[in-house]
Amino acid sequence: MKKKSPSAPKEIASRDSPIITLLSDFGVKDPYVASMKGVILSICRKARIVDITHDIAKFNILQGAYALDAAIPYFPPGSIHVAVVDPSVGTKRKALIVETKRSHLIGPDNGVLMLAGPREGIERVFEIRDRRYMLSNVSPTFHGRDVFCAVAAHLANGTPVDNFGPETNDYTGPGFAKPSLTDDQLSGEIIRVDDFGNIVTNITSKDLTEFGVTIGSTIGVAVGSVSRDIKFCRTYGDVDEGDHVALIGSTGFFEISVNRGNAASFYGAREGTRLRISRC
Amino acid sequence: MKKKSPSAPKEIASRDSPIITLLSDFGVKDPYVASMKGVILSICRKARIVDITHDIAKFNILQGAYALDAAIPYFPPGSIHVAVVDPSVGTKRKALIVETKRSHLIGPDNGVLMLAGPREGIERVFEIRDRRYMLSNVSPTFHGRDVFCAVAAHLANGTPVDNFGPETNDYTGPGFAKPSLTDDQLSGEIIRVDDFGNIVTNITSKDLTEFGVTIGSTIGVAVGSVSRDIKFCRTYGDVDEGDHVALIGSTGFFEISVNRGNAASFYGAREGTRLRISRC
Amino acid sequence: MKKKSPSAPKEIASRDSPIITLLSDFGVKDPYVASMKGVILSICRKARIVDITHDIAKFNILQGAYALDAAIPYFPPGSIHVAVVDPSVGTKRKALIVETKRSHLIGPDNGVLMLAGPREGIERVFEIRDRRYMLSNVSPTFHGRDVFCAVAAHLANGTPVDNFGPETNDYTGPGFAKPSLTDDQLSGEIIRVDDFGNIVTNITSKDLTEFGVTIGSTIGVAVGSVSRDIKFCRTYGDVDEGDHVALIGSTGFFEISVNRGNAASFYGAREGTRLRISRC
Repeated sequence: MKKKSPSAPKEIASRDSPIITLLSDFGVKDPYVASMKGVILSICRKARIVDITHDIAKFNILQGAYALDAAIPYFPPGSIHVAVVDPSVGTKRKALIVETKRSHLIGPDNGVLMLAGPREGIERVFEIRDRRYMLSNVSPTFHGRDVFCAVAAHLANGTPVDNFGPETNDYTGPGFAKPSLTDDQLSGEIIRVDDFGNIVTNITSKDLTEFGVTIGSTIGVAVGSVSRDIKFCRTYGDVDEGDHVALIGSTGFFEISVNRGNAASFYGAREGTRLRISRC
Repeated sequence: MKKKSPSAPKEIASRDSPIITLLSDFGVKDPYVASMKGVILSICRKARIVDITHDIAKFNILQGAYALDAAIPYFPPGSIHVAVVDPSVGTKRKALIVETKRSHLIGPDNGVLMLAGPREGIERVFEIRDRRYMLSNVSPTFHGRDVFCAVAAHLANGTPVDNFGPETNDYTGPGFAKPSLTDDQLSGEIIRVDDFGNIVTNITSKDLTEFGVTIGSTIGVAVGSVSRDIKFCRTYGDVDEGDHVALIGSTGFFEISVNRGNAASFYGAREGTRLRISRC
Repeated sequence: MKKKSPSAPKEIASRDSPIITLLSDFGVKDPYVASMKGVILSICRKARIVDITHDIAKFNILQGAYALDAAIPYFPPGSIHVAVVDPSVGTKRKALIVETKRSHLIGPDNGVLMLAGPREGIERVFEIRDRRYMLSNVSPTFHGRDVFCAVAAHLANGTPVDNFGPETNDYTGPGFAKPSLTDDQLSGEIIRVDDFGNIVTNITSKDLTEFGVTIGSTIGVAVGSVSRDIKFCRTYGDVDEGDHVALIGSTGFFEISVNRGNAASFYGAREGTRLRISRC
């Protein structure tokens, strides 16, 4: 792949209607998300704001990292993505802008940007320091509003990315377990139980191919203490209503589902639970 | 009414800022809805995206059909409405564009478009087949993102509606029970319990007039095994706090409510439950 | 402060992309919020619609007033804010436009606009009466859609604010208790339990300074029947995970929290509960 110049995303971002996406664990019951949007529109009136989700489990950095990584490949190059899962807000943790080949990611230095960043291809990382681009009163408990969204809006207005602070190579990586493969077992971890009760894991299509699992074969799946043989299919409707099905989900990961049912409640599955796959 | 030319909605849609609305049963906790919006903005940067709701009960096609039908009359002519309640995603069910006198409806061929479509006046129905207008990798589990939203964005860009696939007359109608009227009883079905606990039925103002019920009269209402005499009023505040009230709700259907309370928990009402009205 | 001319907000509002924010207790499961947005876009195609929140507790006017007041200072001058917590919809309660030094507030005359209004500086208050600016069929149960949003969109289009109805000085104030201060006790009320379980009170930074509490000091806090000594800090992370912390929250009010935990469940705190602060 031809390497893009580092300044490309910024130039695209500053055009007619720059896109700024927001992800947080704030929920939407409180006025917090709205005040972030107000800050953006006060600084960059023409910004297009899109919510990724604000329902990340409180303080769950990994879940935020996963959701960000799943959503942003579908956004246009030059988009600006703000992710605020920030349990250490107001302490000495850094505030970052990650410039990738496709976009800019803005958020705290705790790993929340570091699944999407490396996948998009990190060009440079900056530490946000210049107070000119923050609100004049920065609340120590709400950098999402007073720092991250203000910075995103200035970036969308065309402020050069190196104006916000110094480049840094010292940042936190993701706490993201990799699947492991032996002769008779492929094991991984549940990264997400989605709203349908589908169990999304960190095992990829490539991992399954290496392990020798093909569409139509039956596999043994063990989640926690529950084991079951399941057919590996293309889609939910390939099995009867109520039947279990394993497949590659729409975010590219191995998934366990019940057609029109809820797999997570059957397995008692939670994010972080380990699972093991064997051939039948 | 003068019949509009079939191409009218498309022309309106392709103007300055085409409106695309989204309805689904995906919830907003996961990155699914955001990735649909990313797809739309990647294809049609100027689109205005508005959420109808993403909290349709999982796989509840009828509830999705009702919500779509209730919301879209308030949107400008030429809007494009995408509705994805799609338990059979990835199987052989068709993908449709329904062209009506006012707008385009896009979604699976399972009835979810078929309350709004006939009410708006169906002009033509197309089966989506041309893969040029889908994402290059179509996930078998997420046509909302890879097919329906991509198609909506191309339509908003001005692609003629008959480019997407062949016209069809073979599509699924709605599973929508009609109220029935005898001399001493009007009976219908609960189509929605709203977030206030209001019980929304499929009985219309016209049905009540034919049955001889007028504002200010008291009627007998039986929901499941619970019966009660209720005053038929104009609005909630026409009865005291905590009192039961029957009225024509804002979506045009007969509704049972408790002023500042929750009627659904009193009656144990659920969607699909039958109800009977009698004169007192 | 130099007094702005009363017409300033309107002029700003009618420029390129007027901002209309929405707050309600409707939830987002039903098509109600979407139909409000459809009405706005049908009248004012260029409007930028931003949700404050639709998850105000049903009929909780004070909670709506607090959320509106917390969010709108971050929006640009000239924004139009619609707030619909309206248990008396369809009765004789008035419908208002409150013109402030910064913006226009639109909603029912029940106090929901009357925390934000006085803080922004009320210039004039109008009673909405002219039916030309409402939908042709006004549902007695949904003025949010048929009156308030229609009026907001016409105002955004540049309709002079005094066209909508007569000026009035007779409107409902907020039911908002003030904190009280004695020599050894500062007492106030819980105005909000946020989605993190943080307990937000009506006590301000200024109240605490007057009472002699400074950053780093320990204070006695009594919420209902639960008492505890807590450190008054700048941010959550100033105490260990699981420890209690008191601080000035991001909306400017005194707040009790548990670092990465849920304070509200510990104290059994609810909105409206009194609390008392003493020096240790």
